Amino acid sequence: MDNQDTIIALATPSGIGAIAVIRLSGKDAIRIVDSFFKSKISTKSLLKQKTHTIHLGHIVDNDRFIDEVLITVFIDPNSYTGENVVEISCHGSVFIQQEIIQLFIQNGIRLANPGEFTLRAFLNGKLDLSQAEAVADLIASDSKASHQIAMQQMRGGFSNEIENLRQELLNFASLIELELDFAEEDVEFANRDDFQKLVHKITSVLKRLIESFAYGNVLKNGIPVAIIGEPNVGKSTLLNALLNEEKAIVSEIAGTTRDAVEDEIIIEGVAYRFIDTAGIRETKDTIESIGIKKTFEKASQAQVIAYLIDGSILRKKTENQQKQLLGFIQTEIDNIKTRFPDKKILIIANKTDLLSDWEISNLKSQSRVLGTNLLLLSAKNKEGISALKNELTSLVNTGALSNNQTIVSNSRHFEALNKALIEINSVQNGIDNKLSSDLIAIDIREALSYLGEITGKVTTEDLLGNIFANFCIGK
Amino acid sequence: MDNQDTIIALATPSGIGAIAVIRLSGKDAIRIVDSFFKSKISTKSLLKQKTHTIHLGHIVDNDRFIDEVLITVFIDPNSYTGENVVEISCHGSVFIQQEIIQLFIQNGIRLANPGEFTLRAFLNGKLDLSQAEAVADLIASDSKASHQIAMQQMRGGFSNEIENLRQELLNFASLIELELDFAEEDVEFANRDDFQKLVHKITSVLKRLIESFAYGNVLKNGIPVAIIGEPNVGKSTLLNALLNEEKAIVSEIAGTTRDAVEDEIIIEGVAYRFIDTAGIRETKDTIESIGIKKTFEKASQAQVIAYLIDGSILRKKTENQQKQLLGFIQTEIDNIKTRFPDKKILIIANKTDLLSDWEISNLKSQSRVLGTNLLLLSAKNKEGISALKNELTSLVNTGALSNNQTIVSNSRHFEALNKALIEINSVQNGIDNKLSSDLIAIDIREALSYLGEITGKVTTEDLLGNIFANFCIGK
Repeated sequence: MDNQDTIIALATPSGIGAIAVIRLSGKDAIRIVDSFFKSKISTKSLLKQKTHTIHLGHIVDNDRFIDEVLITVFIDPNSYTGENVVEISCHGSVFIQQEIIQLFIQNGIRLANPGEFTLRAFLNGKLDLSQAEAVADLIASDSKASHQIAMQQMRGGFSNEIENLRQELLNFASLIELELDFAEEDVEFANRDDFQKLVHKITSVLKRLIESFAYGNVLKNGIPVAIIGEPNVGKSTLLNALLNEEKAIVSEIAGTTRDAVEDEIIIEGVAYRFIDTAGIRETKDTIESIGIKKTFEKASQAQVIAYLIDGSILRKKTENQQKQLLGFIQTEIDNIKTRFPDKKILIIANKTDLLSDWEISNLKSQSRVLGTNLLLLSAKNKEGISALKNELTSLVNTGALSNNQTIVSNSRHFEALNKALIEINSVQNGIDNKLSSDLIAIDIREALSYLGEITGKVTTEDLLGNIFANFCIGK
Repeated sequence: MDNQDTIIALATPSGIGAIAVIRLSGKDAIRIVDSFFKSKISTKSLLKQKTHTIHLGHIVDNDRFIDEVLITVFIDPNSYTGENVVEISCHGSVFIQQEIIQLFIQNGIRLANPGEFTLRAFLNGKLDLSQAEAVADLIASDSKASHQIAMQQMRGGFSNEIENLRQELLNFASLIELELDFAEEDVEFANRDDFQKLVHKITSVLKRLIESFAYGNVLKNGIPVAIIGEPNVGKSTLLNALLNEEKAIVSEIAGTTRDAVEDEIIIEGVAYRFIDTAGIRETKDTIESIGIKKTFEKASQAQVIAYLIDGSILRKKTENQQKQLLGFIQTEIDNIKTRFPDKKILIIANKTDLLSDWEISNLKSQSRVLGTNLLLLSAKNKEGISALKNELTSLVNTGALSNNQTIVSNSRHFEALNKALIEINSVQNGIDNKLSSDLIAIDIREALSYLGEITGKVTTEDLLGNIFANFCIGK
C-alpha cells in the first residue's frame, strides 16, 4: 500500500525516561528522516543502508542540533507495518520528543491515528485481524494469564484454527455451489458423508471455543470476587492486606512500578478484581433489607463470594453462646449458598489476633459444623493471607492455560463464533431435513462470513474503525 | 572494563506504551539474551551477528513465550557504554517489561544503579564527565534554551575549551617542574612571556565562563519572576492566563503531554518560573507590615519583578482622584525600584475590561507620569497577554545562545571554575612578585586539578557517586 502517506508517533510511554522511541511508517519515512539526519560515522545516505541496521548521528534542523539519536531502518516489506519504517531512539526528554515530532509534522508527515501502525500491518497482510487485536491485548495485559492468552492469540494459534475450518468449509461451499450450476443434471460434487463429518467437527470446535470464553474473559479482565459481610468485620483491612503485599512485590523492580488497577491483585499470575461492597449494608433490620439486596446484586456479578465474619465475636463466650452465634452465621451462609448455587464461596473468619489459642482451635473445629471449609486469618496482622491466596488459586482451573489450549477472550470473537454456530446449526438442520443445496449454500456462506470476520478475511470499514480506535497512538 | 558485571534496566519511561526498551550492558549481555532468544528468521546465534543490527524473534523462557521482540546488538566498543550492549524492544505492557527484566535478574544479571550506563560510558572513555552530566540535563530539559545548553555541553564544546586550556597549562607546568630538577643551573625551559600570555588567556576564559553561569543557570532552571501586588489585583488570573495558553500548545501533540512544571511557562523557548507570592500580603496596616516584608523576601529571589496593579481603580474617578491614586502607586513603584536596583521591573495594570476606552487612553498617558513603561491588560479576557510575553522576552538577552557561545549551567562546573580562577590568580601573583618556580608550580597544579574535575580527568569516587546518583535508572 505504498500510496499511503507517512505517519509519525511516539511509540514509548509518554513522560521522562533515559530514551524514547519515535516511529515513522510510510513510503517517505526513510527519505524524510535522512534529510534531517547527520551521521557521526558514515557519509552514506540512510536510503542506501540495509534493512534492520542502526545508525548513530544527530537530528539537525538547519544547523540546530535537536538530539543525538540512533536511527533504525526497516525497509518495505520487512517491517512491522510492511512499509518503510524508521525508529528514532532519542533522549527521553519530553521536550526533545516534541521537538522531533513537530519537526517532521512541519515537513509533511502526519501524526498517526490510534492503532494506525497496526492497521497498516493488517492491511499489508503482516498479521490478521485477530492477531492485530492481540497486540492491543498484549499491551494491556497485566497478569500472567491475560498475557498468555494474548500471546497465544498473537502468535496465531487461534487464527490458524479458525482459518483451517474456514478453508475446509469454503472448499465444500465451492463444490456445493458448483452443483447448483449443474442443478439439472443432479450431480453431487460434495461428498455428503465428508460434509456431515466436517459440520460435526466445526460444531464441536465452535462449541469448545465459545465455552472457553467464560474462562478467557475472566482471565483477561480479572476474576470478580465479592467480599461481603457485616460492617466492621474487616473487609477493607483484608483488601489492603492483599493489595499492599502485591504492591511491595511490584515495586521490587525500580523504574517499572505498575499503574496499579485499583482493587486488583495478581495471585499466581491470575488477576482478581474485587467488587466493592463496602458500606452497602448499614441497615440490619431484616434479612431482606435494602442493604442486603444491594450486596446480593453486587455479589451476583462475582465468580467468587468471600463471606467475611468477625471471628472475635466468639471471644470469652460460653459454649452455648458460641453455638448460638455460629447458628446465626450458619443461617447466613445457607442463605448465600441457596441464592448463588453456581458461585464459589469462601467463608473467612477474621480478627483471629483477638482470640486465644483455645478459642482459635475451637473455631477451627466448628468449620465442620458450618459444613464448609473455614479460613481463619488476621487481616490486621497479615496472618493467614497466603492460605487465602492458595484457596483462591485452587478455585481457578488453569488447566486449559497450561495445556496451551486455545482460549477465546475477545467478546467480538465470542459474538462471531456464536453467530457462526447458529449458521452451522442451520446447515446441520438443512442436511437432516434434506434441504436443497442452494438453501444450504446460503447458510454456509453466512457461517463463512462470520468466521472470516474473526481473522479479518471479511471486514468492513466500520469494523476496522471500531477495533483500531481502541489502540493507543504509536501502535 | 570487561571485568564488570552485566546490568539491566528499563530505558524508556515507565507505564504503558506501544513499545518499551530494556537495555543490558556488560560482557555477558549478548550471550545471556541469546540464551533466551528464538529468532523468527535466522538460526544464527546473536553472538555471531554484526554490531548495530536488529533481529526479530521471541524471548522464551522454557517454552513459555514472553514476548515477540526486536533485539538490537551493539558490540564492544561500539556502544553507548563501550561494552556489549543489547536493547530489547518489547511490547509496552508493564507486565511484559517486568517479566523480561525479572527473567534476566533471575539468571544472574543485576538491576542497574541510577546512571550506571552513563557512568560506564564515562569510565570507558566514551564521553567525559561534563558530557555525561549533559546527558542528564538533556533528559531533564524542558525548554529550547535548557535543551540547547545541554546539547552544546553534550557535544563537547565546553569540554574541549576546558581541555585545551588544561593541556596548554599542563605543558607549562611540565616545563616549570623540569626547571626544578635543574634548579641549581638556573635554566628557564618555560618561556616567561608565553607563560604570562597563557595565564592572561586562561584568566579571561575562566572569567567569561564564570560570568555565563548567571545566565546559564536561569536558562536551565527557568527565569524566576515574582508577580507582586495588592490582594485581588488578579495575580492568579494572570498566571492562569499565561499557563493555560501554554497547556493548549503543549497538548497539541497527542500522546506527548508534558508533565507540566507547576507555575512554569515557556515563552520563545525560554522557561519562566513564577514565584508564588499569593496571599502573603493580607495586612495593609503599614508599608513595613510583615506581609510586605515577605513579599520583598520572595521578590529578592526573582530576576524579574512584575508589579501588578488594579487598573479599574481609576474607573469613574475625577481627574484629581486619579492623580491621587497614581501618586500612591508611584510611591510603591519607587519603593520597589529603590529596594531592588538590579532587578528588571515590569509595571502591569490589569482589569482593563472594566475601563472605558477613554479611561484606558488616560491610563496609557500616565505611563509617562509613572516614569516607566506601563503594560495594560485584562487577564480575565486574555487581552494583552502576548504583549506581556514580548516584554518578558525582551528582558532576556539570548544573544549568547544564538551565537553558540559556551554557557556554563552546571553549579559543579561553576564552583570548579571559580576555584581554578583563584589558583590562576595566585599564579599571576607569583609571576608579578617573581616567586620561585616551585611555589608557582604548586598553584598551577591546583588549577589543573580543578579544571580536570570538570571533564573528569581528575575524579574521586565520591564525586562520581554524587553525579550519577541523580540520574534516572536506565540511563
